Amino acid sequence: MARNSTVKADPSAPGVTAVLARLVAEHPSRGWSTAVEAEAHRTFANWVGCAIGPSQHETVEAALAAVQVLQPAPQASLLGRRERVDIASAALLNGIASHTFDFDDTHLKTIIHPAGPVAPAVLALCEHLSLSGRALLDAMVLGIEVSCRVGNAIYPDHYDRGWHITGSTGMLGSAAACSRLLGLDAARTQMALGIAASQPIGVREQFGTMTKPFHPGGAARVGLMSALMARHGYTASRRALEAPRGLLQVFSDKTDWSQITEGLGQTWEVALNTYKPFACGIVIHPSIDACVQLRELHQLKATDIAQVTIRVHSLVLELTGKKTPTTGLEAKFSVYHSCAVGLLYGRAGEHEYTDEVVNRPEVTALRARVEAIVDDRIDEASVDITIRTTAGRELKLFVEHAIGSVERPMTDAQLRAKFVGQSEPILGAEKSARAWTLAMQIAQCADLREFIANVTL
Amino acid sequence: MARNSTVKADPSAPGVTAVLARLVAEHPSRGWSTAVEAEAHRTFANWVGCAIGPSQHETVEAALAAVQVLQPAPQASLLGRRERVDIASAALLNGIASHTFDFDDTHLKTIIHPAGPVAPAVLALCEHLSLSGRALLDAMVLGIEVSCRVGNAIYPDHYDRGWHITGSTGMLGSAAACSRLLGLDAARTQMALGIAASQPIGVREQFGTMTKPFHPGGAARVGLMSALMARHGYTASRRALEAPRGLLQVFSDKTDWSQITEGLGQTWEVALNTYKPFACGIVIHPSIDACVQLRELHQLKATDIAQVTIRVHSLVLELTGKKTPTTGLEAKFSVYHSCAVGLLYGRAGEHEYTDEVVNRPEVTALRARVEAIVDDRIDEASVDITIRTTAGRELKLFVEHAIGSVERPMTDAQLRAKFVGQSEPILGAEKSARAWTLAMQIAQCADLREFIANVTL
Repeated sequence: MARNSTVKADPSAPGVTAVLARLVAEHPSRGWSTAVEAEAHRTFANWVGCAIGPSQHETVEAALAAVQVLQPAPQASLLGRRERVDIASAALLNGIASHTFDFDDTHLKTIIHPAGPVAPAVLALCEHLSLSGRALLDAMVLGIEVSCRVGNAIYPDHYDRGWHITGSTGMLGSAAACSRLLGLDAARTQMALGIAASQPIGVREQFGTMTKPFHPGGAARVGLMSALMARHGYTASRRALEAPRGLLQVFSDKTDWSQITEGLGQTWEVALNTYKPFACGIVIHPSIDACVQLRELHQLKATDIAQVTIRVHSLVLELTGKKTPTTGLEAKFSVYHSCAVGLLYGRAGEHEYTDEVVNRPEVTALRARVEAIVDDRIDEASVDITIRTTAGRELKLFVEHAIGSVERPMTDAQLRAKFVGQSEPILGAEKSARAWTLAMQIAQCADLREFIANVTL
Repeated sequence: MARNSTVKADPSAPGVTAVLARLVAEHPSRGWSTAVEAEAHRTFANWVGCAIGPSQHETVEAALAAVQVLQPAPQASLLGRRERVDIASAALLNGIASHTFDFDDTHLKTIIHPAGPVAPAVLALCEHLSLSGRALLDAMVLGIEVSCRVGNAIYPDHYDRGWHITGSTGMLGSAAACSRLLGLDAARTQMALGIAASQPIGVREQFGTMTKPFHPGGAARVGLMSALMARHGYTASRRALEAPRGLLQVFSDKTDWSQITEGLGQTWEVALNTYKPFACGIVIHPSIDACVQLRELHQLKATDIAQVTIRVHSLVLELTGKKTPTTGLEAKFSVYHSCAVGLLYGRAGEHEYTDEVVNRPEVTALRARVEAIVDDRIDEASVDITIRTTAGRELKLFVEHAIGSVERPMTDAQLRAKFVGQSEPILGAEKSARAWTLAMQIAQCADLREFIANVTL
C-alpha cells in the first residue's frame, strides 16, 4: 500500500469559511442598494415562475413519489401543487421543479443557477416557521452571495473538471441562507457551511437526464439540513472550505481566495443575475437570438434556408452538441435543434422542447442543415452566424451578447410575460397575476400566507 | 469568459455502471462461498455493535434533534434507542452512530469502512418492508462489492486528493443494496447508481469533527433515496460513473476500470473485511499493537519509559499527527496519545478516547515522550518501534501486520467480546447476548422482529 501523495495543497489559505459565516450572521437586513434589492426581487419572482411551470412534469412526479414513501409530515407547500411535505423534501422538490425546464436564472460569470439551490430552502423554512418576506429576501441574497462567491473562486477549473457548479456550490448557499433564517450566530453558521461542505452535488454527465434538475434541489435540501444540524450542535471543521483537504482545494485546481473576500458585503452577486428568454442551456442563447433576429429581419421561411453555419466557442458544442436529439430533454442540449426552432417559430420556449416538436419533420429537416464550427476566438457568450439562402444570398450576423444577458437584460414586463406563460396554465389567470405582484414585492409581505395561497393549487 | 479546457478525460471507458447494475440485479441469492457468507455475518454483527455503542453520544443526539424538526414518520428503528424515524433518517442516524467511535470495519485495500454506508440502509428498508435476513445479507454483500470495487479503481489518488472514500463511494454501495432489496431490474438499478453518482459525500478535512461520522450515514441516506427515486422512474446518465464527465473521472485522476470488472461475481470484497480492536483510525493500530506487545513482554510501567520512537509511513502522521489533543475526538487522530494509552493501560478502547483520559496527567506526560519519524520505506500497515528505558535499555519491535488485519484477524470470540463491550452498557446483558447470536445468523432469520427487539430499547 505504501506510496507518496502527489496531490498538492496550500495550507496557507485564508479562513474564508469564517469570513462567509460572519457575513451571513451579521450583515444588516437590507444592507444593500435599491438596485440590488430590485434584482433580488426579480430573481425570486423569476424562480417562482420557473418552479410552477414544470410542477406537473414527470420529473417532479417521480421525485415526489419517492419522497412519499417516507410519509412526510405536511410542513411546507409544493409550488403549483396541492401536496405538502416536510421542509427538507419541499426544498428538494421545489428545487428540482425550478430547474426541470432549464429556464431558471443564471450568474453568467460562473454559469451557476443561483436561485435553484437557495430559494426553495428559504421558502420552505419561512412558510414552516411563519417568517416574513423580508427575512426570506435577506436570506436569499446572502445565500446567493455565498454560493456565487465560492463559484467565482473556483470557476472555470472546477466546472471544466466536470462538476455541475450549481449543485456543487449550491449547498453552501442554501446552508448560509437557512442559517440566517434560523438566527444562527457566526460560529454555528460556520459549522453549517462545514457540514454542507462534505455534500457537494452534481456531475455534468447528468445533463440531459432528470438528475440535472436534481442538482439544485438536492443542494437546497443538503443546505437546509446542514443548518438544522448546526443549530442543534453538530460540528464540522472550521476550515471546511479552505483547508488543504477541505472542499475547495479537493475539487478545484483553481482557488482564488480573493474572489471570496474582496468587496464582501459591499458588492452583491445577485445584482449580476440574468434570466433566460429561452428554455435551454445558456450557451445556446446567442445562437437562438441570432436565428430569431435574422428570421425577423429577412422574413425567412424554412424553404428559404439552404444552410446555417454558426461559429461558436468549443464549450458550446461540448455542452450542447447533440446532433440528433429524439426527446425534448435531449433537445435542450442541442444547439442544432435550438437554431431550427428559432428559425422556424421565432422562439424557443418550453413548447419548442417537447418530444412532439423535436420529432416534427420540418424541424428535423432544418436541423440537418445547421452546421457548427468551433472557433475559440469567439466568446462563449457570442455567436457568428451565416445563413446561405436557397436563392444564393449570404445573411450574416454577429451577436456579442444575447437577449437576457447582463448587457441586454430582460425588462420587468418581459419577465412578467415569462412568469405568466409558465404559471397561468397551472394556476389560472387570477392567481398567476396576483402571484407575480406578490413575488415582486415579497420583502414587504409580513405574512407569506397570501403568497403561498396564490402559488399553490 | 472564453478559455480552453485543460482537464483530460477518457471517452473510451468501459460501461461499468451497467456492469455493476447487472451484478446487483441478477446475481443469485447467497451466490458465494461459505467463507464469504461467514465474513458477511461478522461484518454485519460487528457493525451492529459499533452502532449501538455510541447510540447515546452527543453526535447522534444532535443529528437526531435536527431530524426530529422534520416530524418523521416512525418507520424504522434506531439501534440502542427507543425512537423510530422514517427509513431515510434511520439510515442516516444509524450510519452516523456506527462511525462515531471510529471503531467499525475496514477494507484495508482502500481504507473504506464498508458496512457504515450500506448496513444501515438495508436494515431500515428490511425492517420497514418486512424483508428477510437473507435478503438483508444478500443486499449488504452486493452493496459492499460495489463501493469497494469502485474504491479499488480510484484508490489511492482519490483519497490522496482529500476525499473521505467511505462516504464518496458509500452512496453507490447503499444505492446498489437498496435497489436489490426493492427488486429493481438492471436498468433501474443503473439509474439508482447514476442518481447516487451525483451525491458523493465527505472530505478528509472533517476528520476529528462530528462530520466525519456523518459521511457513512449521509451516504447510506443518499443511496436509499436514489434507489427509491429510480424505482419511481427517476432517470440519470447510463454512464454516470465512467463517462468523461461522470463521477469517477471527475473526482479521481486514477481510474483502473479492470478493478471493477475483473473477477466480478467470483471474488467478494467483503471477504477482505477487517475489524478494529482499537477505537481509532486504522493507521494507528500497528503502533498501538506494538506498544501493547512491548508493555506485556517487558512488564513496562510509565516510569520505566524515557523515550518512545516510532518509525512510520508519512500517511500515519498526515492522518493522525495531532501532537497535543485536548478532546477524545481529537485523540483518535493522535498516534502520540494512542501509543501512550497502549503503554499505560494495554488497550485503546472507547474509554481511552474520552476527554477525561486524554487530559489525565500521566497520559499527557507519557505522550510528550513519544516521537514519530516518517520513513516511507515502512508500509502504512507496519511500524518500527524503539523504547528507550530509564535504565538505558533499548527495546525494539517491528510489527508488520497489526492485530485485526487480514493477516492477523480477530477471532469470533474476540469480536463477540467487542460487541458485548459496546452493547451491554446500553442494552443489558441478556439482550446484548441474544443480539450477538441473532446477528451472527441473520441470514437465517425469516422475520427480523426478534432481532430488532433485541437491538433497541
